[in-house]
Amino acid sequence: MNQLKIFAPATIANVSCGFDVLGLCLDTVGDEMIIRKTSEKGITISRLVGQDLPLETEKNVAGIAGLAMLEKLNLNHGFEIEIYKNIKAGSGIGSSAASSAGTVWAMNELLGKPFSAKELVPFAMEGEKLASGTAHADNVAPALLGGFTLVRSYEPLDIIKIPTPDELYATVIHPQIEVKTSDSRSVLKQKITLKESIIQIGNLGGLISGLYTSDYDLISRSLHDEIVEPLRAILIPGFDEVKANAIQAGALGAGISGSGPSIFALSKGEEMAQNVAKSMSETYKKLHIDYDIHVSKINTNGCRVVEC
Amino acid sequence: MNQLKIFAPATIANVSCGFDVLGLCLDTVGDEMIIRKTSEKGITISRLVGQDLPLETEKNVAGIAGLAMLEKLNLNHGFEIEIYKNIKAGSGIGSSAASSAGTVWAMNELLGKPFSAKELVPFAMEGEKLASGTAHADNVAPALLGGFTLVRSYEPLDIIKIPTPDELYATVIHPQIEVKTSDSRSVLKQKITLKESIIQIGNLGGLISGLYTSDYDLISRSLHDEIVEPLRAILIPGFDEVKANAIQAGALGAGISGSGPSIFALSKGEEMAQNVAKSMSETYKKLHIDYDIHVSKINTNGCRVVEC
Repeated sequence: MNQLKIFAPATIANVSCGFDVLGLCLDTVGDEMIIRKTSEKGITISRLVGQDLPLETEKNVAGIAGLAMLEKLNLNHGFEIEIYKNIKAGSGIGSSAASSAGTVWAMNELLGKPFSAKELVPFAMEGEKLASGTAHADNVAPALLGGFTLVRSYEPLDIIKIPTPDELYATVIHPQIEVKTSDSRSVLKQKITLKESIIQIGNLGGLISGLYTSDYDLISRSLHDEIVEPLRAILIPGFDEVKANAIQAGALGAGISGSGPSIFALSKGEEMAQNVAKSMSETYKKLHIDYDIHVSKINTNGCRVVEC
Repeated sequence: MNQLKIFAPATIANVSCGFDVLGLCLDTVGDEMIIRKTSEKGITISRLVGQDLPLETEKNVAGIAGLAMLEKLNLNHGFEIEIYKNIKAGSGIGSSAASSAGTVWAMNELLGKPFSAKELVPFAMEGEKLASGTAHADNVAPALLGGFTLVRSYEPLDIIKIPTPDELYATVIHPQIEVKTSDSRSVLKQKITLKESIIQIGNLGGLISGLYTSDYDLISRSLHDEIVEPLRAILIPGFDEVKANAIQAGALGAGISGSGPSIFALSKGEEMAQNVAKSMSETYKKLHIDYDIHVSKINTNGCRVVEC
């Protein structure tokens, strides 16, 4: 096998009370990539469709992630990558993570899986470091492992896969507005109260518990971000209304995807997730803001082969 | 059935990263209580052995908890309580909670269980309010429900029972020193950094996950309190050494029980928990501080009938 066409999924990081620790993997939104072995060593990005991004290996997240993986191997060949982007940059659903994770996942498949999915995470994190300055794992971990992933710790890196209830669906709306990364960072408070932290911890414990027991009601009660959402919501026009609409339509909960501007909702069952999608769209129709909207089962596998 | 003799268990609150949200129930340490129906209405505390506490109903945590429960019922009789304390007051293993929880649990049994265990929690919390000024649930919830309990939220009260791995044992050492509640409160910082909070949240997620999957190694990696232990440890002479000894002897982790001065360790298997007990004792022998030490399986049922 010298070539693979794969699906590299979009992901939601900062799942409400799981700010900076909990992410999930989507199934109907993602990029396609073709990765093939080349006699030439190193990583070459030969094609990039759908987004205006640099092709130079060292300036592209896929290239950087691939190089990080190559460093740990002693290969007499290299890889060529074609990237077909469907995930918009800056949408808050892991566009750069899909490219980084997809690259190392496909390379690993072509090499006969020398690494486990968890072992691939640090390579993909190098791509994230190029994209955002921080080697965070919130998006690449769910893209590689599938389902919900908890980053228990960074030092040392410790990623835990959390089970996904069968009927859980995500709805994600991406209003076509720009939220500057610098703004979404600068609104964060570096100090919070002990009480806020305890509320967040209680909810995170409830959410993890609900995911293990498929207790949708508990998941719903726990989908609350005490700390970050109140600060970042002001950067996303219509956020409060979109969230309220989602919940009124029957969503278990809703919040900011990553650092926005996408807004996600979780629902029990596809029909409900579709109803929630309709309801979430209303606000941006009214505000005359263009949007993309996606309904997706939680993808419990992560990256997958589309074609050998 | 007009009378019950029950075992009212000791409990550990603030289980490391679960500060203020996670508690567990012990099996070999606890009080005994006799509760009997009386023709006279109200609650009478007729006997209190082992501790110098007021017998007046309104000044005793058991009395207050019982009265809170009676308020929700329309009974033409009352209850008489005898309390045989084994749990020392101020030890940090839920002495007042055992009396509050034991009272309402036994009353509920004698009445044919009009309330679920979770519904009894708010009554027992009234006893805690008398004891410490705060109606906290960290100790009464595990005493009533057994096992590990998560207080997801206080407003509204939402208690989640978390599974207990079969081989999990606790070792608890109680050095005979006094830590003033006012001191253990005043050392807490009301503001913490976002980073500290995220570390704590990651660990709590890992701990809950480890409890669901009986992953002892994950439990061990997660038993870390980033926020409170570093502040409160200074109030307990020998804490760092006792903790280090416990871990060196093979404990999964160790921390402050409640607000101290008791120190707990969790271990896989009884033999390990006994070894840990020996090791934890060394420091207080050396410091010539008297101590009690207990080894206990986690009690997954909570209060229980000893004799009808």
